[in-house]
Amino acid sequence: MEIVADELIEARWLLPVQPWSLIEHGAVAVRDGRIVALGAAAELSPQVVAARHTRLPAHVLMPGLVNAHAHVGMTLLRGYADDLPLMRWLHERVWPAESRWLAPDFVRDSTRLGCAEMLRAGITTFSDMYFFPDAAIAAAQRCGMRMVAGLPVLEFATAYARDAAAYLHAGLAARDRWAGAPGLHFTLAPHAPYTVSDDTFGRIATFAAQLDLRVHVHLHETRDEIEQGLAQSGERPLARLRRLGLLGPELIGVHAVHLLDEEIGMLAEHGVALVHCPTSNLKLGSGIARLGDWLAAGLTVGLGSDSVVSNNRHDLFAEMRLAALLAKGSSGDAAMLPARQALHLATLGGAMALGLGEQTGSLEPGKAADLIAVDLAAAHLQPLYDPISQLVYCADREQVSDVWVGGERRVASGCLQNDDEAELRALAVDWQLRIASG
Amino acid sequence: MEIVADELIEARWLLPVQPWSLIEHGAVAVRDGRIVALGAAAELSPQVVAARHTRLPAHVLMPGLVNAHAHVGMTLLRGYADDLPLMRWLHERVWPAESRWLAPDFVRDSTRLGCAEMLRAGITTFSDMYFFPDAAIAAAQRCGMRMVAGLPVLEFATAYARDAAAYLHAGLAARDRWAGAPGLHFTLAPHAPYTVSDDTFGRIATFAAQLDLRVHVHLHETRDEIEQGLAQSGERPLARLRRLGLLGPELIGVHAVHLLDEEIGMLAEHGVALVHCPTSNLKLGSGIARLGDWLAAGLTVGLGSDSVVSNNRHDLFAEMRLAALLAKGSSGDAAMLPARQALHLATLGGAMALGLGEQTGSLEPGKAADLIAVDLAAAHLQPLYDPISQLVYCADREQVSDVWVGGERRVASGCLQNDDEAELRALAVDWQLRIASG
Repeated sequence: MEIVADELIEARWLLPVQPWSLIEHGAVAVRDGRIVALGAAAELSPQVVAARHTRLPAHVLMPGLVNAHAHVGMTLLRGYADDLPLMRWLHERVWPAESRWLAPDFVRDSTRLGCAEMLRAGITTFSDMYFFPDAAIAAAQRCGMRMVAGLPVLEFATAYARDAAAYLHAGLAARDRWAGAPGLHFTLAPHAPYTVSDDTFGRIATFAAQLDLRVHVHLHETRDEIEQGLAQSGERPLARLRRLGLLGPELIGVHAVHLLDEEIGMLAEHGVALVHCPTSNLKLGSGIARLGDWLAAGLTVGLGSDSVVSNNRHDLFAEMRLAALLAKGSSGDAAMLPARQALHLATLGGAMALGLGEQTGSLEPGKAADLIAVDLAAAHLQPLYDPISQLVYCADREQVSDVWVGGERRVASGCLQNDDEAELRALAVDWQLRIASG
Repeated sequence: MEIVADELIEARWLLPVQPWSLIEHGAVAVRDGRIVALGAAAELSPQVVAARHTRLPAHVLMPGLVNAHAHVGMTLLRGYADDLPLMRWLHERVWPAESRWLAPDFVRDSTRLGCAEMLRAGITTFSDMYFFPDAAIAAAQRCGMRMVAGLPVLEFATAYARDAAAYLHAGLAARDRWAGAPGLHFTLAPHAPYTVSDDTFGRIATFAAQLDLRVHVHLHETRDEIEQGLAQSGERPLARLRRLGLLGPELIGVHAVHLLDEEIGMLAEHGVALVHCPTSNLKLGSGIARLGDWLAAGLTVGLGSDSVVSNNRHDLFAEMRLAALLAKGSSGDAAMLPARQALHLATLGGAMALGLGEQTGSLEPGKAADLIAVDLAAAHLQPLYDPISQLVYCADREQVSDVWVGGERRVASGCLQNDDEAELRALAVDWQLRIASG
């Protein structure tokens, strides 16, 4: 039985994620951007007639990573506001810079730089939430990344829109303009309970149901947010969202650092998905989310980098490792969140949280060929008793050698195929000089 | 005024650490293994007549990192015991493997692999605690690293020694054999309060005073250790060490995850130094040490990787970042442990904890030329508003390009000078196959 393919990729280890297994000397056949077959190379390869044949002798071939929450349009502010208390961070640095620079060219160039960073780090899908989504989408399309564009909504004016109705209008118009673009999906992205009114949440719930869109929202990130909610409406923000009809399988809650036991139960009952952003939660002093309890309750969970202003990196290797370490350290149980589970969060968990579980996040016939190769040959990764452990605890993003999105090679032997590192650096330096000089 | 030097190194940024400053376009002159002058390149370079001239156009030149606690002799067990509860980790994996394989060749090859990893990651000094220190010293000398060899002492028998007296005897004999070896220092290294008797601690205190050696000990790592101490002697381990006369400026306590307020005060009063091992503390489920409170109390603090069985990496970039993130996340204060302070812990803090503050850990005339260059040119490190932030939050060990120990270049443009990556990999794989097959 002959399998015709565009590309046959053989690797020292194949990690499909779903179903869970680690195949030594595995192979994947790709045609028309999709996985058509996978398995042991000794069995599969002789059956495949492929235009290209790629061999990865010391690599794990696995699903591309899913960055389930980011603000990639802020990449030009990387490291611009470190080590400041949250309120000074916002009022003295982030908001003034945004009010000065926020415009389509800023978002386009930020997203171009961020997409290059993410692809080089093995991220093939990202879920975004930022202003001027048109400009961000254009950049992501150019880079060839899978993107879930969040259409931002809040009550106050920015350079992008003047009020909630205008945000909604602009977002839905962008969605119409980009209809049918490859690898592009949308969410409605109300910023947070404290920046969006009851009325607007109600309209968002209606649009989400009518247009079959998920809703992507910051939720219970800080204690302040919860206290403010209690002071203003007498409810914790999550109770308010429930009252407004937002809780359901289409809701994606981000951060959720502060949840009561009954709130975790409520989220599980409604099928809400959560995104864990461990670096950002620590760096802004928000705290440590109860990831172990979320998973025990059966919640769908992905990992997110958040913006590089609260992280400095779009790097799911860092988030995977930190998620595993924090789960162990905060529970006192070294067996909590084993490497395998951390890898699941960074791949299929994120894809499922975004509603893309049928399309990406694991290597299965019929799914998009979103693949990455991680080179485990370096001496500092030896000995190598367990490739899964080494991927999570030992590898850095620098070990990602090759990346495919929908079967297209976006990184080859460590080099970006759709952009130029030197040009990106020059672009970033140009912006940096302008921004730093105010 | 002419300065004669073996090497003049110019870098985009110079970070001496002590006194704190960031010099744009800086230079360091090195002669006979020591720093003879440093400053702005425009002023210094014209005065220097140097045999070699090295230019680092996009790099930070800074002190080599100090790994203040490791068991480098275990490097061949990297990732051998992940995601297991502490007692299973010890009883099912670590101790059986050690009892099967512990011998000078295992320690020598482990240390050779670990030194290569550390040098490539910008670590120029490490403080070690493991069996067969002779074999470890031989490996470190070959690699050209600065080493503080801990002479291990415990009550129970291993392949290395049968009882505490034999450990002490073997350790002190090793010290005599290696007297005068370059870049080599010693500590007495009683394993922990729960593995060392009162009598042995007493002898160690005597030797430490007579021989002017520091004492390097695991301390209050887990709650179990403290409860066990209370059950056995009615005292918390730290109180017991105080009673035995161990508390003083020559004591280096490692982990110290669980300390009461008054214990932090007691340590400060006695001038005890602590080593923070944030990754290991999380990975083994020990908890989060009170680093912010240690520093507020004025303690001298360094950072340690611990072994690669409880970490998977000898990587102070990871420890710096995690120390800063955890201090913020556990205190709720995003301004806690700013990048600058994290860098201090990883360099001069560690050197001072080890009693080497006059020799290494900062770039000052007269100190050893222990230098590293970190290349900040990559697109994923742009924009670059603050090189210090970027070093701590954004750079990985892979960005270390060049390393000098005592003026000798040990890594040049990412390549080890004293060892061979392919040979190291082959060595590690050979051991891995033997160890994995039992």
